[in-house]
Amino acid sequence: MTIDTHGDAILDHASAPGADAAHHGYITDKDKYLNRLKRIEGQARGIHKMVEDEKYCIDILTQISALTSALEAVAVGLLDDHLRHCVVDAARLGGAEADAKITEATQAIARLVR
Amino acid sequence: MTIDTHGDAILDHASAPGADAAHHGYITDKDKYLNRLKRIEGQARGIHKMVEDEKYCIDILTQISALTSALEAVAVGLLDDHLRHCVVDAARLGGAEADAKITEATQAIARLVR
Amino acid sequence: MTIDTHGDAILDHASAPGADAAHHGYITDKDKYLNRLKRIEGQARGIHKMVEDEKYCIDILTQISALTSALEAVAVGLLDDHLRHCVVDAARLGGAEADAKITEATQAIARLVR
Amino acid sequence: MTIDTHGDAILDHASAPGADAAHHGYITDKDKYLNRLKRIEGQARGIHKMVEDEKYCIDILTQISALTSALEAVAVGLLDDHLRHCVVDAARLGGAEADAKITEATQAIARLVR
Repeated sequence: MTIDTHGDAILDHASAPGADAAHHGYITDKDKYLNRLKRIEGQARGIHKMVEDEKYCIDILTQISALTSALEAVAVGLLDDHLRHCVVDAARLGGAEADAKITEATQAIARLVR
Repeated sequence: MTIDTHGDAILDHASAPGADAAHHGYITDKDKYLNRLKRIEGQARGIHKMVEDEKYCIDILTQISALTSALEAVAVGLLDDHLRHCVVDAARLGGAEADAKITEATQAIARLVR
Repeated sequence: MTIDTHGDAILDHASAPGADAAHHGYITDKDKYLNRLKRIEGQARGIHKMVEDEKYCIDILTQISALTSALEAVAVGLLDDHLRHCVVDAARLGGAEADAKITEATQAIARLVR
Repeated sequence: MTIDTHGDAILDHASAPGADAAHHGYITDKDKYLNRLKRIEGQARGIHKMVEDEKYCIDILTQISALTSALEAVAVGLLDDHLRHCVVDAARLGGAEADAKITEATQAIARLVR
């Protein structure tokens, strides 16, 4: 699927491995997230270095915007996985459990939207 | 439920009427949304008036922030209703329909999160 | 100038009239803002109508995202005008006044960024 | 100063050292930013670990929201420093240079606001 946000949201569901799902097992493509988060760590380190070297403020702000976008793309991807697995499972069970899952998801969305 | 966002998110599910659900019937408390949106229209009109009267820029920006927050609260509330009804219904049916509903919801969330 | 945000930010400074600046006189092209805010009022009214008619939730969310973007573009435009006039004037005077103006602008930016 | 955003924006100007300003010299309290960015790197690493350990999705999303807020606070702080130094200096010189600095700042703000 495509997402009309900046950054490339991690929303492919084709390659779900199934096997490596240990604890919660909701993450469709764990390696993709791990690579993405490695890169995010690198971006954070780069911003630290930019401040240390007193790079031009506007260039640092550009990098912060890029990092924020990358984080939002990861968040949207994880949320998609969460809806697709945990929430759908709860919905099938129905009742208070389903309600609680939706409420929890909505609160997470509200925090992201702010 | 409570939501740790600014504004008071419209997320009460107690008063779901059921009866007034005409077209899509997903909106838990339509009157609450309508009142909220009436107020939002008034806020937009007020900002127009502030620019017309050349009020102090920072005060106009404060009102724009308040209006944006009010809109986000409505969006989160509608999304909650959507997950609670359309998505849960689709989840129970399962298959491609459920997948498509989640994808659609995630795309809407991505637009809100940006 | 162009701004790499969604929507068309109101950031043209060519047409500053000068004459119609009454109270604060910082708004470069007042008519452009007024037209833009009229359209925003119409968008708010349209969203109210969509809820009234119980249009599909996702379509309402799309309109809310569009309205939020339009508001953000107005806010960025007003902030640009504010920096360009009030803050620059204060900077020339210097001292505590300049400091206070920057602090005030930063607080407005923080509210917009969230 | 206080900022009504989440997180504690780095906006104190009391402790400006002056001495450690090498390249652009605009950063009021470099050590504070460096400490803050070190913590941000740690948060990014923590999120990577959470995905690796397949922690509960909603908990990961909460950490991503916290990291995004921390980044926004750094961005607002840097922007404040930038306005206070580079933009104010340019404003005093006036002319095309001042205009260009404001345009550049506004574009950075637009990217942060989105």
